[in-house]
Amino acid sequence: MKTSSPIGIAVIGGGYWGPNLVRNAQQTPGLHLEYLCDLDVDRAKRVLGEYSTVRVAGLDEVLADPAVQAVAIATPAATHYEVAMKALEAGKHVLVEKPLAPTFEEGRLLVEAAERHGRVLMLDHTYCYTSEVRHIRDLVRGGELGELQYLDSVRINLGLVQPDVDVLWDLAPHDLSIFDAILPDDVYPVSVAAHGSDPVGAGHACVAHLTLRLSNGALAHVHVNWLSPTKIRTFVVGGSSRTVIWDDLNPVQRLSVHDRGVERTNPADVDPDARRQTFVSYRTGDTVSPALPNLEALRSVMVEFAASIAENRAPLTDGWSGLRVLAILEAASISLAKDGMSVPIRTVEGHSPSGGTIPIEASQRGRGEVTV
Amino acid sequence: MKTSSPIGIAVIGGGYWGPNLVRNAQQTPGLHLEYLCDLDVDRAKRVLGEYSTVRVAGLDEVLADPAVQAVAIATPAATHYEVAMKALEAGKHVLVEKPLAPTFEEGRLLVEAAERHGRVLMLDHTYCYTSEVRHIRDLVRGGELGELQYLDSVRINLGLVQPDVDVLWDLAPHDLSIFDAILPDDVYPVSVAAHGSDPVGAGHACVAHLTLRLSNGALAHVHVNWLSPTKIRTFVVGGSSRTVIWDDLNPVQRLSVHDRGVERTNPADVDPDARRQTFVSYRTGDTVSPALPNLEALRSVMVEFAASIAENRAPLTDGWSGLRVLAILEAASISLAKDGMSVPIRTVEGHSPSGGTIPIEASQRGRGEVTV
Amino acid sequence: MKTSSPIGIAVIGGGYWGPNLVRNAQQTPGLHLEYLCDLDVDRAKRVLGEYSTVRVAGLDEVLADPAVQAVAIATPAATHYEVAMKALEAGKHVLVEKPLAPTFEEGRLLVEAAERHGRVLMLDHTYCYTSEVRHIRDLVRGGELGELQYLDSVRINLGLVQPDVDVLWDLAPHDLSIFDAILPDDVYPVSVAAHGSDPVGAGHACVAHLTLRLSNGALAHVHVNWLSPTKIRTFVVGGSSRTVIWDDLNPVQRLSVHDRGVERTNPADVDPDARRQTFVSYRTGDTVSPALPNLEALRSVMVEFAASIAENRAPLTDGWSGLRVLAILEAASISLAKDGMSVPIRTVEGHSPSGGTIPIEASQRGRGEVTV
Amino acid sequence: MKTSSPIGIAVIGGGYWGPNLVRNAQQTPGLHLEYLCDLDVDRAKRVLGEYSTVRVAGLDEVLADPAVQAVAIATPAATHYEVAMKALEAGKHVLVEKPLAPTFEEGRLLVEAAERHGRVLMLDHTYCYTSEVRHIRDLVRGGELGELQYLDSVRINLGLVQPDVDVLWDLAPHDLSIFDAILPDDVYPVSVAAHGSDPVGAGHACVAHLTLRLSNGALAHVHVNWLSPTKIRTFVVGGSSRTVIWDDLNPVQRLSVHDRGVERTNPADVDPDARRQTFVSYRTGDTVSPALPNLEALRSVMVEFAASIAENRAPLTDGWSGLRVLAILEAASISLAKDGMSVPIRTVEGHSPSGGTIPIEASQRGRGEVTV
Repeated sequence: MKTSSPIGIAVIGGGYWGPNLVRNAQQTPGLHLEYLCDLDVDRAKRVLGEYSTVRVAGLDEVLADPAVQAVAIATPAATHYEVAMKALEAGKHVLVEKPLAPTFEEGRLLVEAAERHGRVLMLDHTYCYTSEVRHIRDLVRGGELGELQYLDSVRINLGLVQPDVDVLWDLAPHDLSIFDAILPDDVYPVSVAAHGSDPVGAGHACVAHLTLRLSNGALAHVHVNWLSPTKIRTFVVGGSSRTVIWDDLNPVQRLSVHDRGVERTNPADVDPDARRQTFVSYRTGDTVSPALPNLEALRSVMVEFAASIAENRAPLTDGWSGLRVLAILEAASISLAKDGMSVPIRTVEGHSPSGGTIPIEASQRGRGEVTV
Repeated sequence: MKTSSPIGIAVIGGGYWGPNLVRNAQQTPGLHLEYLCDLDVDRAKRVLGEYSTVRVAGLDEVLADPAVQAVAIATPAATHYEVAMKALEAGKHVLVEKPLAPTFEEGRLLVEAAERHGRVLMLDHTYCYTSEVRHIRDLVRGGELGELQYLDSVRINLGLVQPDVDVLWDLAPHDLSIFDAILPDDVYPVSVAAHGSDPVGAGHACVAHLTLRLSNGALAHVHVNWLSPTKIRTFVVGGSSRTVIWDDLNPVQRLSVHDRGVERTNPADVDPDARRQTFVSYRTGDTVSPALPNLEALRSVMVEFAASIAENRAPLTDGWSGLRVLAILEAASISLAKDGMSVPIRTVEGHSPSGGTIPIEASQRGRGEVTV
Repeated sequence: MKTSSPIGIAVIGGGYWGPNLVRNAQQTPGLHLEYLCDLDVDRAKRVLGEYSTVRVAGLDEVLADPAVQAVAIATPAATHYEVAMKALEAGKHVLVEKPLAPTFEEGRLLVEAAERHGRVLMLDHTYCYTSEVRHIRDLVRGGELGELQYLDSVRINLGLVQPDVDVLWDLAPHDLSIFDAILPDDVYPVSVAAHGSDPVGAGHACVAHLTLRLSNGALAHVHVNWLSPTKIRTFVVGGSSRTVIWDDLNPVQRLSVHDRGVERTNPADVDPDARRQTFVSYRTGDTVSPALPNLEALRSVMVEFAASIAENRAPLTDGWSGLRVLAILEAASISLAKDGMSVPIRTVEGHSPSGGTIPIEASQRGRGEVTV
Repeated sequence: MKTSSPIGIAVIGGGYWGPNLVRNAQQTPGLHLEYLCDLDVDRAKRVLGEYSTVRVAGLDEVLADPAVQAVAIATPAATHYEVAMKALEAGKHVLVEKPLAPTFEEGRLLVEAAERHGRVLMLDHTYCYTSEVRHIRDLVRGGELGELQYLDSVRINLGLVQPDVDVLWDLAPHDLSIFDAILPDDVYPVSVAAHGSDPVGAGHACVAHLTLRLSNGALAHVHVNWLSPTKIRTFVVGGSSRTVIWDDLNPVQRLSVHDRGVERTNPADVDPDARRQTFVSYRTGDTVSPALPNLEALRSVMVEFAASIAENRAPLTDGWSGLRVLAILEAASISLAKDGMSVPIRTVEGHSPSGGTIPIEASQRGRGEVTV
């Protein structure tokens, strides 16, 4: 591993999210921002402002410049496949906004291309880099919540009604990537039912409810909604031992861990006739709000991107995590079209045609050998 | 209408809800509480306390007493049909806890019996008598919210895991009865999908999500959950003009009406090519929290029960409202058993075999002649 | 201790608070409610309702009845002295609403009379019997908060503008009695400054700020206000180790203990020149919300009253606690009249003329022998 | 007014607040940032980052550069007088952080110097440029709140214990400048009582309560506190007609206007004997949360600074507003040293020795001719 000189990076796309990538790329020690690239050159210049030394250039010029080793892509979702593939083929490491690609198939091709070219393919699943998700992940995977009983995520606000994607593809990747990050290896979504409606005539769903059935029988529910006048972002993981609630808009106490719940008592101890009455017990313990550092998640994304390039390893949210999210989105879209029918979610491991193998440690989830 | 002397009433069932009925019956001017009746005589005596002049007696004795003109039934749901039928046949007016009966069929028989005997059959849909639901009803039915875009109700807390009913039958009647009370005549649930899970081994769902498709295409979602460590009770009605949010646990501001939202612009005004970009407009107006009286809803239930008896009219939440709720619960149970399949909700008006007719004004909803 | 038969009790005063005393007296096992007594006989009958076996009678009749061993007084503050003295002289145990009496001098006479007649004199300092105050008391007196740094109590709402007392005498007794209950023996108020205003022309203060200087140099501040459109009841005890915040209107989490704060570092360890920069250190630890039982405080008041009579001991909030509160109120009134001048608070122990002695354990605070 | 070319500006001081000034100066159209100046050159370079074209230079060099027409000063408070005076004497317009100067006398000299040199002297009273304060100002001065009954500001959090100033001088300028901005012309602070404590041995107050008596008899209270584990920033203006509450940390609803309150009824209408009982009436109307734009206040500060220079006029928060705040702080410090004694606040207009006159319109408050 050599990290003597910073990694040259370009940001592709200066729209909604691009300026945040520009700002954070500039402030990440291991990176050096070379270019901002946008079809609208004036917009790119406005984003940089009049005091900047960063250059504006077209995509081809950027990809041809050997000073650029990595790109961060924040173009519209429909173009992710094309831009990312071009960058990978030009030998660049790629950080891409969610979703990885417009279809599972294209996502798979990107993952394969990254493997083939030996380049990092990383998803900007920003929320996975918050202190809150990291803490929840530790609690869940460390067993402190006990058995998982339910998950519930509400992500609603008066959001921009997107012209090209529905609310499911726009917002739910956040929730699904968090599920992906925190679930233990043996608990994963097996099917999904999606219900949506389009009360403003947008041509696609503006309100949607996703209900995922997990492999342990529990439900994970996601409510995404562009039409809510108030913003709500709550994420709950209910466990047999503890329940953790993340209220992202609570200025004082974003995470709280409740030592309260319902537990099965040992059925062997209970008289069969009395069983219905006595088989559960209630706990009402304390609530703890852990002190968490107040980090900007996108900074951590950039740091992880730089580190995974420098250390030649898979990043925390690698292409596979993006592919797993796409598998759920694809199944949810089918369900949406079939009046909420329950649709099985394809196993990412089982659909890879090429037979390539990446080491366990290269994957975030590490559910065993992943064959492509 | 003669209301010279108060109506003699007996409360049947001294368990969880019975004491509230006892207290409110005593404080309602048009009623005189004669008896509390419970299989467990000691429990009944404990509920009344040592300073009370109210009598404890068995059901048969109570029903045989001509001083008793009405009964309020708060026995377990499984017994509602039997107890209510017995009371109706004894010529008593009946107020019954939700749900009306364990099955739609039994509910229908009760409605018919009430018709046949000319007695009031009223559901204790307590929430429908809160200031909040009345205000929401006025807003929705008065058109102030514009077109209904979505409804969302969350009713979760660390609740008693019931031995005999699942969380859907335990909690969702509250939400469904509120929907029933507030929806305009031309918007009603047509199908329902229900997903549930039983992570504590209770033998039935402890967590459930209901997604109702309304006749106008909108979704109404209900999340009921016995396993949540924190209590949440929020109810949202999103409209094209305004959205109303009811947070029942907010001590300061329970209802808020948001003049914010997304509206379709006139498609005729818009160039077809630009249409996707421009067809919606956003409003960000003020939020108003109306000053509402702080009434105990159950008192209003009792007052309405007494008034409907005295005035010989259908109460606000009559047997039909109970039957409409049963129709949804029944469909939801089928959906639950079929992995969330979308199940049509039977039209109450269309399934009545006997051909009887009650006048429009006798029904709360008045969607036209209701034939039995 | 003999508690074979319940203690006969009468409630005197059926106004604002009386009905609560009636209800709780009836539900307390060690008590038997004999009478409700009010100058307005109809009001007394309305409070009891038509189903009650409790009698209505005049004060003299009640005090003459040997079945009555104790009285609970909820008459207007101006009459407390007269009624309580009459009851003590009739040999009754007395529970009295706050404040104990209209003046310190009259309060002192009541305490002496109770001593002389060997009867319990107890203050209904209701808040001191909440789970929250008990828990705070344990934390403070158990040293878990470290050194006390500040106290802050806000008690504001749209309250009834009282005709006969100002906001200070109406509301501040709550806060002052809580201070009295929780402070450790060696920390007590030594002076008070009070500022008030009367913006509605009530003839006395409707808004008031009290700043108490404690014996350890810390400030305890109380804001009472009848004119606030929103209700706020927060109580903070800041310590060098932890800070506890009680938000009485938070439906989810009333008490929270914050392991955050500022601490002095050892000055000896610090270079004098750097001292200004380095002498404090910050902690940002977890926040814990303890699970507390949800009790009705007034029930506990009644239980303590019954127990102190039965066990022939001083109650938790005895006459001395009422007298200490009066000492502060009296000084605050002087300060109010003198534009917020700092006024010393008289030491209760030092102003007792009679020389009587009650054992340490008979006093709640037990700051050493208390001589009268 | 010529604004053809942007105004050259330098930021002096790259510590806590300086980076915000740098960022906002760069984004304000009428300004061009020429320099960042800090005694610690490396810190200045770090603040600018490696991609910036802005220069780092010393104060003398900056003041000598004719391209610099204005400076924004964010150095420690103790140096404000010296740096600002130097800048004014060099003919620069000056924006200075609060407080204007360490003493009233030095503040007066700065105001005079600005007059003498014909340069803008503006205070960065950032809060006065928020949407919330502007809206409150409009409500108060527009008479919509009715008569002012009380003001209450709480500004507490776990703040940096400053080595050189107490909590009063550190935090209260925010609250006092807001009072200054919103109060109508005929209502102003006449005296102040301040109580403070230093529980961590900082050498000066870390907790303080200020009680200002206004000219109409109302109280304005400020609680500032560096030791609170939770952050609270609430600001209340109570009026006879309405009360406005600003909760700066409420993510959903920062401002709420309550149409609730207590009002005097006409005493002439009331029988003298009944007067005490009936002289007030209560209103419980709706609460409105106005939709306010979500602006960065500091951007508005910069825009106002640029505009006041370009238009050759006094800015909204001119030197006089800074001087009025200093008059209160000075009196509060005297009160603090004298155990909370009430201290009169000097009238800014009455203490000016030089006899100079600025036109009414040059002052924000415009209480008539201001003579220096």
